[in-house]
Amino acid sequence: MILIHTPSAKEVAAYLKLFRAALPQHRFISLDEMTQPEAVQYVITWGPPPALFARLPKLEAVFALGAGVDKLLARDDLAAGVPIYRLLDGGMALQMSEYVRFGVLSYQRHMDVYRRQQAAGVWKMLAPKLPAEVRVGVLGLGEIGSAVALALAADGYRVSGWSRSAKQVAGIRCLHGDDGLAELLAGSEVLACVLPSTPQTQGLLNEQRLAALPPGAMLINAGRGDLLDEDALLALLDSGHLRCAQLDVFASEPLPHGHRLWQHPAVTVTPHIAAITLREEAVRQIAANLERLATGDAAQGQVLRERGY
Amino acid sequence: MILIHTPSAKEVAAYLKLFRAALPQHRFISLDEMTQPEAVQYVITWGPPPALFARLPKLEAVFALGAGVDKLLARDDLAAGVPIYRLLDGGMALQMSEYVRFGVLSYQRHMDVYRRQQAAGVWKMLAPKLPAEVRVGVLGLGEIGSAVALALAADGYRVSGWSRSAKQVAGIRCLHGDDGLAELLAGSEVLACVLPSTPQTQGLLNEQRLAALPPGAMLINAGRGDLLDEDALLALLDSGHLRCAQLDVFASEPLPHGHRLWQHPAVTVTPHIAAITLREEAVRQIAANLERLATGDAAQGQVLRERGY
Ligand SMILES: NC(=O)c1ccc[n+]([C@@H]2O[C@H](COP(=O)([O-])OP(=O)(O)OC[C@H]3O[C@@H](n4cnc5c(N)ncnc54)[C@H](OP(=O)(O)O)[C@@H]3O)[C@@H](O)[C@H]2O)c1
Ligand SMILES: NC(=O)c1ccc[n+]([C@@H]2O[C@H](COP(=O)([O-])OP(=O)(O)OC[C@H]3O[C@@H](n4cnc5c(N)ncnc54)[C@H](OP(=O)(O)O)[C@@H]3O)[C@@H](O)[C@H]2O)c1
Repeated sequence: MILIHTPSAKEVAAYLKLFRAALPQHRFISLDEMTQPEAVQYVITWGPPPALFARLPKLEAVFALGAGVDKLLARDDLAAGVPIYRLLDGGMALQMSEYVRFGVLSYQRHMDVYRRQQAAGVWKMLAPKLPAEVRVGVLGLGEIGSAVALALAADGYRVSGWSRSAKQVAGIRCLHGDDGLAELLAGSEVLACVLPSTPQTQGLLNEQRLAALPPGAMLINAGRGDLLDEDALLALLDSGHLRCAQLDVFASEPLPHGHRLWQHPAVTVTPHIAAITLREEAVRQIAANLERLATGDAAQGQVLRERGY
Repeated sequence: MILIHTPSAKEVAAYLKLFRAALPQHRFISLDEMTQPEAVQYVITWGPPPALFARLPKLEAVFALGAGVDKLLARDDLAAGVPIYRLLDGGMALQMSEYVRFGVLSYQRHMDVYRRQQAAGVWKMLAPKLPAEVRVGVLGLGEIGSAVALALAADGYRVSGWSRSAKQVAGIRCLHGDDGLAELLAGSEVLACVLPSTPQTQGLLNEQRLAALPPGAMLINAGRGDLLDEDALLALLDSGHLRCAQLDVFASEPLPHGHRLWQHPAVTVTPHIAAITLREEAVRQIAANLERLATGDAAQGQVLRERGY
């Protein structure tokens, strides 16, 4: 039996319909329909309720309906022996590339400055910049980050990327390690973060590292909110060292009422929409994984707990 | 003798330097240096002072430092027999593609709506749209418009284009004539205008045509301000029929103080920067044309007066 759960009943209903059509030989149920927790073999989920997994003694695997699994890994009700599989791209890389491109284009073409000029009724042209004159640093070169880096390079920007292990991506200056990060920060007019949240990345974008960006730089964070020191960001925007920020993820979501980020003129706030799970694609990937497991093959997208992502 | 004039003395100095280096055999002068108007053979200019051309009895041709020549054609001091040459692309098509892409991306990814939600402190996700779900209509398929249409099609948008004569552009649904315009308007969630201002295009974007766009559509105007009825646009934004507009050109420029467009929450105002003349490229093109004329060849980019562009 396969349990499907997300915080939205409507969404669960939609997933039930799609999974039942895709794999009629399996039995998919919602939490309401779960009369025998011990019969649940797999869970397909995003944002499961607390202690859910502790009720499922025969759980064999969890399928996350997204790419980031920090919340799942932080739970204490999920036995370490139960594998977690996450979504691999599935349309998220394209969406993230669009989201980052929007920010970079805004920076390159001074659209943020023109917006502020407009608010003040000021008509003033700024010298145009070519894409090749804008250096972009991408933090994270995984499924999503490497696609973002390649899309920006195709637009003509000068792109560097940073990952945990050494990588090679055509046309991208690939860096890793502490020295690599220092080099990337010093040379990025736009810093775009698509890292996962792990014990190693939490708090990465602190005051010191943000201050290492060149004067007038922009920050885009679409990884996770806990990577960023929001107060440090606000202070560097206020001091003028940083020009602007485009943020999709926050230390606390929804971004709390009255938070300074809502009102800061140099900040664009989006409600965690940079790369939304596309339902059909999620079903396709997870159904393929269920079939692999049924035939004894290895499923794809397994999260490595010791790595944290 | 070749006179160089723009409203900025600094810019004139820069152009003088570049042209003198490119074509040392010619004599380039500024307006201040003009002691013998009858010796001026060519004028290279943007925004020349009134009656200037009437003082130049031996003028053989005018080279515009831009793509649009509506102001030059509207003058009464320039004899109809004097050919006008305009710039062909020269980096403007790429800039314009970026400008339009920014608007289309903003529309597709609801960035304008998120901006308004941010101002109100509202955290609300909207259903994502794929590029293929956004239909864009491009008015004008010349040097700039065809490049814009191709760039948007490469991004995955569904693109139609409209021109005076029938055209073929790979991957673009090409329309022309009144019927073609009606079809394009009815099927464009985003309408991007890069038409020249001519007696035929002035006032084209009137109340009736803007109302023919689908509900919730966006207007981008980077052609010329006199193509658009600004009051009609404001009324359709206020009524909610149109969702937003990104405007680079205006009936009166600079956009007058206190104009409603400055403050409208659904309008992005930029100060005529969508595609700026790149100096080196302008010099390269005009120098090549001067050499063609010197050897008796036809210069490129001649404006057809009877056509108006
Ligand atoms: N805002 C949104 O809507 C949204 C949507 C989807 C995803 N996301 C976020 O994006 C993240 C990335 O997704 P993905 O699918 O690209 O993940 P992924 O394929 O696992 O890639 C993660 C990347 O981060 C790098 N990384 C991890 N820890 C690191 C460290 N300590 N130092 C340096 N680099 C490190 C990895 O390096 P290696 O290559 O060396 O392993 C890899 O390149 C997700 O975890 C999620 O938080 C956000
Ligand atoms: N905002 C800025 O920064 C900026 C910068 C540069 C240019 N511009 C504007 O962009 C305009 C276009 O530049 P361009 O270099 O692409 O010009 P172009 O090569 O002359 O192309 C003009 C296009 O408009 C079409 N057109 C003209 N009159 C028309 C009519 N009555 N009905 C339908 N289509 C008509 C032409 O149709 P055919 O193909 O049939 O001839 C052609 O496709 C310039 O004139 C200028 O106003 C603005």
